[in-house]
Amino acid sequence: MAHAFKNCSNLMVTGASRGLGLQIIESLVTGGFSPGKIIATARNPDGAKVMLRADSRSPIYVTCQESIERAASEVEQLVQEEGLNCLINNAGINVVANLETVTADKMLENFHTNSVAPLMITKAMLPLLKRAAAKGTGMGIHRAAVINMTSLLGSVELYWGDRADTFKWYPYRTSKSALNMVTRCLAVDLEADGILCMALHPGWVRTDMGGPEAPLSPEESISCVLSVIGGLTEKDHGSFLHYTGEQLPW
Amino acid sequence: MAHAFKNCSNLMVTGASRGLGLQIIESLVTGGFSPGKIIATARNPDGAKVMLRADSRSPIYVTCQESIERAASEVEQLVQEEGLNCLINNAGINVVANLETVTADKMLENFHTNSVAPLMITKAMLPLLKRAAAKGTGMGIHRAAVINMTSLLGSVELYWGDRADTFKWYPYRTSKSALNMVTRCLAVDLEADGILCMALHPGWVRTDMGGPEAPLSPEESISCVLSVIGGLTEKDHGSFLHYTGEQLPW
Ligand SMILES: NC(=O)c1ccc[n+]([C@@H]2O[C@H](COP(=O)([O-])OP(=O)(O)OC[C@H]3O[C@@H](n4cnc5c(N)ncnc54)[C@H](OP(=O)(O)O)[C@@H]3O)[C@@H](O)[C@H]2O)c1
Ligand SMILES: NC(=O)c1ccc[n+]([C@@H]2O[C@H](COP(=O)([O-])OP(=O)(O)OC[C@H]3O[C@@H](n4cnc5c(N)ncnc54)[C@H](OP(=O)(O)O)[C@@H]3O)[C@@H](O)[C@H]2O)c1
Repeated sequence: MAHAFKNCSNLMVTGASRGLGLQIIESLVTGGFSPGKIIATARNPDGAKVMLRADSRSPIYVTCQESIERAASEVEQLVQEEGLNCLINNAGINVVANLETVTADKMLENFHTNSVAPLMITKAMLPLLKRAAAKGTGMGIHRAAVINMTSLLGSVELYWGDRADTFKWYPYRTSKSALNMVTRCLAVDLEADGILCMALHPGWVRTDMGGPEAPLSPEESISCVLSVIGGLTEKDHGSFLHYTGEQLPW
Repeated sequence: MAHAFKNCSNLMVTGASRGLGLQIIESLVTGGFSPGKIIATARNPDGAKVMLRADSRSPIYVTCQESIERAASEVEQLVQEEGLNCLINNAGINVVANLETVTADKMLENFHTNSVAPLMITKAMLPLLKRAAAKGTGMGIHRAAVINMTSLLGSVELYWGDRADTFKWYPYRTSKSALNMVTRCLAVDLEADGILCMALHPGWVRTDMGGPEAPLSPEESISCVLSVIGGLTEKDHGSFLHYTGEQLPW
């Protein structure tokens, strides 16, 4: 699966301290990533459980604009004229609250981390994504791509009938629907630069967020996720995909 | 059109100082609303251009929880044992920003007013909506309904291709997609109480927000809007409708 990344030189992942972000780094490193750079960012990179060959451990507190801009200059130092080929906005939180317990603050907190942060990080990395895109043709990670880790729980269409019995989480669901619109807005605006943008659901996975009941291991999820990301082309621009590669309804 | 409201006793509209909210009040009053109560709320009710027969001019600053709770007690005094049959969450803002000018604060501000406020207001009015719902059967404004004024610009599906040339507004679009998910979450949770919840696009209308280029007058829009709201039944629960009554994709 990671062989699909042989044409991707420089890649950056947020939220790489644990869970899916960390697994992405591990899988790329052990799977023989391209000779390019893997940039693993975490809030507190020294606290990361494992940090295999990752060329940077730039600290990004994704909801802090200063921290995003500092990271952008550090990433620029690392990738230089090559630019950034793939940005994976993976950091996310679930501020669990149902109708009874939801508050304005919980809604705002989850929205800030899950929907606004990916937008502001993409904006900050845009010069580097454009630099990479300027060197290629077509669309995909061989050129430049922005992948937003969303969730099936953000699909308004699917939250109905049989699927409406569980996970009645207002802040999380709303933040992921909002992230889907952010992704679509970015796709519209970055198309002319040849930068692919899409939203990806990684499956329900046994991480701190997914919990022990989830059917997928991080390895299983990320193996599929990387194969989907590696195979992205023009036709996937602006899409919302399941980790199996199927299209999901908004 | 307002005759469709003959079975709706008590109705409340937010953002009734001007634009569509004010037009809803005017059309209901001149169209011969039921003998029930029309509760027009505005941030500063004394500043409202016209305030025809509206039984309350409860001030709600929709992003302020204290103000929401104060309004809820005032509404309770007005409707008493009858409860509230129809809540129209109409207040909204457009914090105009494109990819270049968008900031985290602009995203958060628009989300707070357009997506979080309707949720918190609905929560505060829930005891009154349930009181009304307990007296009826079926679904619709004869019993209890929550109408969220959303926008076609909140449809992720429609923001593509030919429709992607204009209105590249990140905060507004994202806030309305988020409101659509809030609406769906409420629909799932309030179904058992018999409270209908749906999202309605009023068309592009010549108000302060819609601007002078918009094709519809407030009278034209609200005439259609009220006829859609008046005709809502079970089959519209959890839906996203155009002011013409057609279904819209999320
Ligand atoms: N697991 C699932 O079943 C599942 C399903 C659908 C979608 N997802 C999505 O997949 C992504 C990764 O999920 P996961 O399961 O790996 O979650 P996780 O195990 O809870 O890890 C979350 C990661 O995000 C980071 N993070 C959170 N807030 C941050 C902030 N303000 N600044 C910087 N980093 C921050 C965390 O850093 P710290 O270690 O510093 O807290 C951590 O690295 C999320 O976007 C999630 O919504 C997960
Ligand atoms: N016009 C269109 O073409 C169009 C199209 C699609 C959807 N919509 C939606 O329809 C709704 C009404 O739009 P409109 O055209 O009538 O807009 P408008 O003319 O700008 O009026 C907005 C109303 O919302 C109120 N409001 C805003 N923020 C508030 C807050 N924090 N607390 C209390 N009230 C607040 C305003 O009160 P103040 O007077 O105190 O500011 C005003 O009454 C909005 O939700 C809008 O997004 C409009």
